Amino acid sequence: MATIRPQNAKGTRDFGPLESSRRNYIFDTIKKRFQSHGFMPLETPAVENLNVLTGKYGEEGDKLLFRVLNSGDFLKKVKPEDLEEKNLGAISAKMCDRGLRYDLTIPFARYVCANLNELALPFKRYQIQPVWRADRPQKGRYREFYQCDGDIIGTESLLSEVSLVEVYHDVFNDLKLDGVEIVINNRKILQGIASVLGVSDKLTDMTIAIDKLDKIGAEKVGEELLKRDFSEEQVARLSTLLTLEGSSDEKLSTIKEFLGEDEVGKLGLEELEFVLSNVRELGIENLVFDPTLARGLDYYTGCIFEVKLVDGSMGSIGGGGRYDDLTSMFGQKEKLSGVGISFGAERIYDVMLDRGLFEDISASVDFMIINMSDDDQKEYLQIARNFRAQGRSIEIYPTSAKMKKQMTYANKRGVKNVIFYGDQEKEQRILKIKDMETGQEKQESLA
Amino acid sequence: MATIRPQNAKGTRDFGPLESSRRNYIFDTIKKRFQSHGFMPLETPAVENLNVLTGKYGEEGDKLLFRVLNSGDFLKKVKPEDLEEKNLGAISAKMCDRGLRYDLTIPFARYVCANLNELALPFKRYQIQPVWRADRPQKGRYREFYQCDGDIIGTESLLSEVSLVEVYHDVFNDLKLDGVEIVINNRKILQGIASVLGVSDKLTDMTIAIDKLDKIGAEKVGEELLKRDFSEEQVARLSTLLTLEGSSDEKLSTIKEFLGEDEVGKLGLEELEFVLSNVRELGIENLVFDPTLARGLDYYTGCIFEVKLVDGSMGSIGGGGRYDDLTSMFGQKEKLSGVGISFGAERIYDVMLDRGLFEDISASVDFMIINMSDDDQKEYLQIARNFRAQGRSIEIYPTSAKMKKQMTYANKRGVKNVIFYGDQEKEQRILKIKDMETGQEKQESLA
Repeated sequence: MATIRPQNAKGTRDFGPLESSRRNYIFDTIKKRFQSHGFMPLETPAVENLNVLTGKYGEEGDKLLFRVLNSGDFLKKVKPEDLEEKNLGAISAKMCDRGLRYDLTIPFARYVCANLNELALPFKRYQIQPVWRADRPQKGRYREFYQCDGDIIGTESLLSEVSLVEVYHDVFNDLKLDGVEIVINNRKILQGIASVLGVSDKLTDMTIAIDKLDKIGAEKVGEELLKRDFSEEQVARLSTLLTLEGSSDEKLSTIKEFLGEDEVGKLGLEELEFVLSNVRELGIENLVFDPTLARGLDYYTGCIFEVKLVDGSMGSIGGGGRYDDLTSMFGQKEKLSGVGISFGAERIYDVMLDRGLFEDISASVDFMIINMSDDDQKEYLQIARNFRAQGRSIEIYPTSAKMKKQMTYANKRGVKNVIFYGDQEKEQRILKIKDMETGQEKQESLA
Repeated sequence: MATIRPQNAKGTRDFGPLESSRRNYIFDTIKKRFQSHGFMPLETPAVENLNVLTGKYGEEGDKLLFRVLNSGDFLKKVKPEDLEEKNLGAISAKMCDRGLRYDLTIPFARYVCANLNELALPFKRYQIQPVWRADRPQKGRYREFYQCDGDIIGTESLLSEVSLVEVYHDVFNDLKLDGVEIVINNRKILQGIASVLGVSDKLTDMTIAIDKLDKIGAEKVGEELLKRDFSEEQVARLSTLLTLEGSSDEKLSTIKEFLGEDEVGKLGLEELEFVLSNVRELGIENLVFDPTLARGLDYYTGCIFEVKLVDGSMGSIGGGGRYDDLTSMFGQKEKLSGVGISFGAERIYDVMLDRGLFEDISASVDFMIINMSDDDQKEYLQIARNFRAQGRSIEIYPTSAKMKKQMTYANKRGVKNVIFYGDQEKEQRILKIKDMETGQEKQESLA
């Protein structure tokens, strides 16, 4: 067999013991909080029929789908003329019936539609699974990465929004990630603003432009809107809103005044204030209103969220919002309103690593028994078994190698305590236990 | 947008809340036991370079690999003459640089080789992830399914084998899966038998034939061996070994006599007896010796394992063994001996479902607050928050709908307790809590 370089596919990663343990700590924290609100786990397959995936993520998204080659005679359905003309789109459509999951939202919508009769609505699920995108890999951007989503579908109740803000707050609190701000806005407020400005027909243009505010600044956003046939006056009036300073309440009152009697805008404000006030009553202080929050995705219709670090050291580490209809694409007639949030687990991991928040997380073992003699292995095994019965993790060094070799291993592996059970200890019926970090030794009598 | 059937790709499954919870219960039990022995988590990507995967699973395996189409111009490297001649192998090799993970063993070997300098040896990892095979789907056979593996690599110590038997035993014990038998044999014993029979050159033929014993019976195995140039006498002598009855110890003594002074065979017996006796000392009674256990895979060299149900209601629910060299294919010069086991999680799930062993596992929520009035939502939110702070999961019915609708939801969703907090309860500062299973009501005073 030829020798092969033991290399990962580009843009993919192995998660070794420590990294896995740290990532699982984040995932478990998120799961626990979702569960405490009655969210239930859902897992969908990595491989989906391509017709479920294509056309859902825009033209760019379609290009980034990983397609799985049909097995057997994959050329069977390909037309000769398409091959001749190298008509890539047509060829791949015939060669590949399946692709890799691109996000967790579409599979969730598919699941809901396929199981609507069995589901009690509202249905609340969390889902933590990898997704794949054929993107150019670069720092912090991978072809295989995890998404962590939670959604409540089948109710318009704003209690859902409150619940999701609680989950956000509590997860970051559990993770000891300080300086997190949960930003909220409402698409209906943006709609109201557009209406007051007289650009209701250009709402999408406006949303897309505002969404870039953080990246390109108010001036450039204005320029972009001018190109999109906004008038100087419209841009000027919008600019004052985009550059508002002050507290959430101050911003709210400015926006309220601006919206005046606009019906949709007022509804958006009401929704927002319901969430804001109820969350505050619960003692959660870091939900802030920002009328410039837009979120790129088309399907949002109500409250929208984004989670940021106050120090600005990282882009968004979470986001989400309310949607009115994710299910009609799968033939679901009655619209199902829902709201969901997502945790940017990969970025959360990076920030936590930066801040040293994984100190207590280890993949190591509590105890290792120093293997002093082949004759004593039976006893080592019994000691280890007793330790495990007490919920402690323990291993035995595999051979009676030199002490130095065993201690080197224990150090490299990060064993927390080593156990000596030599002649003297046998006689006294004790174990000598050495804490590898402090060097301190203590004794424990044999069970 | 055209309407799409909300359908899974063939051979794949969604795992809804209950199924996910049950599966996670199995996975968590396995993880916990591996961890207690010092095994560490490892995750490798779903997508691997194809050169890592091909040629590792035999010709049949290569056919069952899911290949991922290159993005961009996937025809770029394809030769026109291959296209013309529909040379499928050559074409797919040029169109697809990557494929989906086929098992967890090869990625594990790749990981070890790529990280050998950083790893403390022996390295013990567990890995629970899906794999993909382009098999024809049928009952119990999927294209996407989970494997659960644990391996110890970098030591020849038989303490590893003991450790793995303990893990097997304890996991099935935790899962309350009775009537499980862990069968052990040793490839060196098979080698010794072949040597005594004078068919050392036909060891693989013999192993492959014996491996079919369960399926086709001793007679057919004999016929197959005759076709492979075994003599009548050789087949007859082997047959007596294949049809041995009695306890592990009785079989051991027959085999011992048969092997006589054969060096390799004696070594195999020693290894086996070490594991058997040490495991027994630990009070584990369900490890049994069976000289007819062969295991299909080529790379096993020492102890081999298979886990079965005594009632024969299901094929093997686990298996594994010792190998001398999984890493040289990735250019690793010094051979790394290792031993691993695998849990057949999908089958374990089916047996447990059959036997009603998931009774205590639910995806539901501990409490639901009946939503009696929009005016009281602030209080519901606070009650829920207090409950969660005490580690209880709780949700609020999203709207003040009719009681019947709320109770119907609670029933369908499997809510464990509903909470009434109406005018009377408000006055008394209590919660009325109804157990949905027993119908019993109790009171709890408000915090």
